[in-house]
Amino acid sequence: MNQDAIKIVGTGLIGTSLGLALAKKGNVAQLSDSSKANLRLAIEYGAGEEQHLDPKLVVVCVPPDLTAEVVIEQLSLHPNAIVTDVASVKSEIQTAVLSQAKDSARYIGSHPMAGREKGGPASARADLFFARPWVITPSNSSSEAAVAMVRDLAIQIGALPIVMSAEEHDKAVALVSHLPQLVASTLAARLESGEESHLNLTGQGLRDTSRIASSDPALWLQILSQNSSEIAPLLSELRKDIEQLEKAFQNLSETGSLAKIHSLLERGTRGISRIPGKHGGKLVGYQQLTVVIDDSPGSLAALLTFIGEIGVNIEDLKLEHSPGAPIGLVEVFVVPESAEKLAKQLTENGWRIV
Amino acid sequence: MNQDAIKIVGTGLIGTSLGLALAKKGNVAQLSDSSKANLRLAIEYGAGEEQHLDPKLVVVCVPPDLTAEVVIEQLSLHPNAIVTDVASVKSEIQTAVLSQAKDSARYIGSHPMAGREKGGPASARADLFFARPWVITPSNSSSEAAVAMVRDLAIQIGALPIVMSAEEHDKAVALVSHLPQLVASTLAARLESGEESHLNLTGQGLRDTSRIASSDPALWLQILSQNSSEIAPLLSELRKDIEQLEKAFQNLSETGSLAKIHSLLERGTRGISRIPGKHGGKLVGYQQLTVVIDDSPGSLAALLTFIGEIGVNIEDLKLEHSPGAPIGLVEVFVVPESAEKLAKQLTENGWRIV
Repeated sequence: MNQDAIKIVGTGLIGTSLGLALAKKGNVAQLSDSSKANLRLAIEYGAGEEQHLDPKLVVVCVPPDLTAEVVIEQLSLHPNAIVTDVASVKSEIQTAVLSQAKDSARYIGSHPMAGREKGGPASARADLFFARPWVITPSNSSSEAAVAMVRDLAIQIGALPIVMSAEEHDKAVALVSHLPQLVASTLAARLESGEESHLNLTGQGLRDTSRIASSDPALWLQILSQNSSEIAPLLSELRKDIEQLEKAFQNLSETGSLAKIHSLLERGTRGISRIPGKHGGKLVGYQQLTVVIDDSPGSLAALLTFIGEIGVNIEDLKLEHSPGAPIGLVEVFVVPESAEKLAKQLTENGWRIV
Repeated sequence: MNQDAIKIVGTGLIGTSLGLALAKKGNVAQLSDSSKANLRLAIEYGAGEEQHLDPKLVVVCVPPDLTAEVVIEQLSLHPNAIVTDVASVKSEIQTAVLSQAKDSARYIGSHPMAGREKGGPASARADLFFARPWVITPSNSSSEAAVAMVRDLAIQIGALPIVMSAEEHDKAVALVSHLPQLVASTLAARLESGEESHLNLTGQGLRDTSRIASSDPALWLQILSQNSSEIAPLLSELRKDIEQLEKAFQNLSETGSLAKIHSLLERGTRGISRIPGKHGGKLVGYQQLTVVIDDSPGSLAALLTFIGEIGVNIEDLKLEHSPGAPIGLVEVFVVPESAEKLAKQLTENGWRIV
C-alpha cells in the first residue's frame, strides 16, 4: 500500500497503536479524531499525520456505540475506499451498516483481539496487535477485495488474521471474553464489603480470578450492551450452575448435594483443559519449579541467565507476591524432560528450590 | 526445639513439605503415615525419619475429613504434646475436638496458606510455606503455650504467623479462597460445550479468571463441604448479582438495565482495589512495559540481565502466550519513576517495545 493509503478515524488506544504499528513499517497513516487534543497527541507520538488525501482503506477506531454511524459516514465520504472497524462486537454494527449504507460491499467488520486496561493515545503501543488474533467478519455483501485488504493490514503489523462470520465472532467473544469479564467483576464486587483482615489472606488464586475486574466500566458497558443476545443465555446457564451450588451448600446433608458440587468441580477441570496452550497448541503438562530470589535488581536475571546457560527453555514464568517478605518466589514452567536436570543444576549451584 | 520434638502425621504434600522445611533447619521430624509407600517416599526425600519418641508437637497433615479424628487420637496417644493440624477449614474440626477430646487445651488449630495444584509427597517443596501466612486459630480452651509453639514453628520455617479465631478464619477463606474456586470452576464448566474455534480466541483474561479451576475436585470437595455455612451466603449474594445481570441483558432496552450492568462493573473495580498489593502493601500503580523476545533458551534471561544492569527492579513480570507465533511477549512492571528510563534504554539497545 502507498504511504497515504490508510486513514485511521479515532486516535484512542487502538487507533494510535495501529498508527504506530504502521509507522514502524514506514507507512504514515492519515489520522482524524473529533478530539483535537487526542489527535495532536497521536501525531506527536508518531502515529501518523493529519492529511486530506483519498484513502484506500479507512479503519474506524471510535468507541463501540459510535462505530456504525462513523462507518456509514466514512463509506459516503470516501466512495472508493474499503472501510473497516475494530469494535469488539460485530453483528449489531454490521446490521446497522447493511441497512443504512448504500455501498456495503466496501464495508468489512474486524476485531483485533488486543487491548489494555487503560485507554487513550497515551497508552498506545506499536506492538499491541503483534501475535494477536485479528478477526475479520465478512457479511454476505462484503467484497473479496475488502476481506483481502484487512487481512493484508493485519499481516503487515504482525497480527494473525482469522475469518469468521459476525455471528460466530460474537458468540465466541461472549464465551471467552464477555462472560469472564462479568464473572470477574461479580466476584470482585463481593470484596467491596469484605473485612480488611480477611482480604489480607488473599493469595494468587483470587488475584488471578478477579484481575480483569479492574477494566474500564464505561467502555465495557458499551461492549457488553452490544452483545446482550449472546451474553444472556450464557449468564442463564452460569446462574443455574451457581443456583445448584447454592442449594447444595445450603442443604449439604441432603442426598446428592456433595455429588452436585463434585460434578461442577469436575466439569471445571474438563472445561479448562480445552483452552489452547502456548503457541496455539494444546496445554502440555509443564512441570513447575519454584525458586526463591531476593527482591533486588538483577536477581531474577541472574536466575534466568543461569537457566539459559544450561540450555533449558522456560515455557512460562510467574513471579509470586510475598506479603510481608522482601523476597520473590519465581515459578518456572519447563517441559517435563528438562525438569529434573534443571532442579539438580539449580540446587547444586546454590539456588533455593525443592 | 530438640531434634526429636516434632511429629508429622500424614506425609502428603503438606506434611512432607513441612518435614523438608524443618530438615533444612537441621530439625529431623518424626514421620508417620497410614500409607507405607507415602511414608517411605517422604523419608527418602529427606523429610524426616520413622521414630517412636515422645514428641513435644504433633502436626496432623491428613485430608480434611480425617483431621478431627486423627487430632483426637494423637492427643490421647501423646499426653504431653501440643497437637495442631493444617486443614483449610477450622471451625468444624475445632468443635469436634472440643466436644470429644479430654484435654483440648493442648489442641491448637492452624492453616498454612500454601498449596499446589498437585498433591502427594512427590510434589512437596521445602519452601512451600516460605513467606506465606500461617493462620493460628486458638479456641477458648487452647493454652498460650500451644499458640506459642505453632507460632515458633511457623517462624522457624519462614512462614508468617497470624492469629485469629476459627470463625474469622473460615469467613475469610470462604471469601478469598472458596468463592473464587467455585467461580473459576463454574466459569470453566461453560467451556466444556464451547466450540474449538471459539476457544481459539481465548486471551489472558479467560486464562487468569479460570486458572484455579484445574485444582483437584476430590480435595476441594472435602474443603468446601466443611465450610458450607460460610460459603452458602456468599454464593447467594453472588447469585443475586448474576440474576440481576441476567435480567438486565435479557431486557436491555428496559429503563435501568444499563445502569444495573454499569453499577456491577463499578463495584468490581472498587472491590478489586481492596486486594492488598505485593509485600502486604496496598497496590501501587506500577507501570507496564511490554517487550518482545524470541522463544528460545536465554532470551528472557538476556532481557532481565539487561534490566538488572541498568539497576531497575522488576516488581512483577508476566510471560504472555502468543497463539500461533514462536515469540514471547514479556510484560515488565516497574515503579513509575523507572519506567521512562527503562523504556529509553531498552529501545536504544535494540529491544522491541513501545
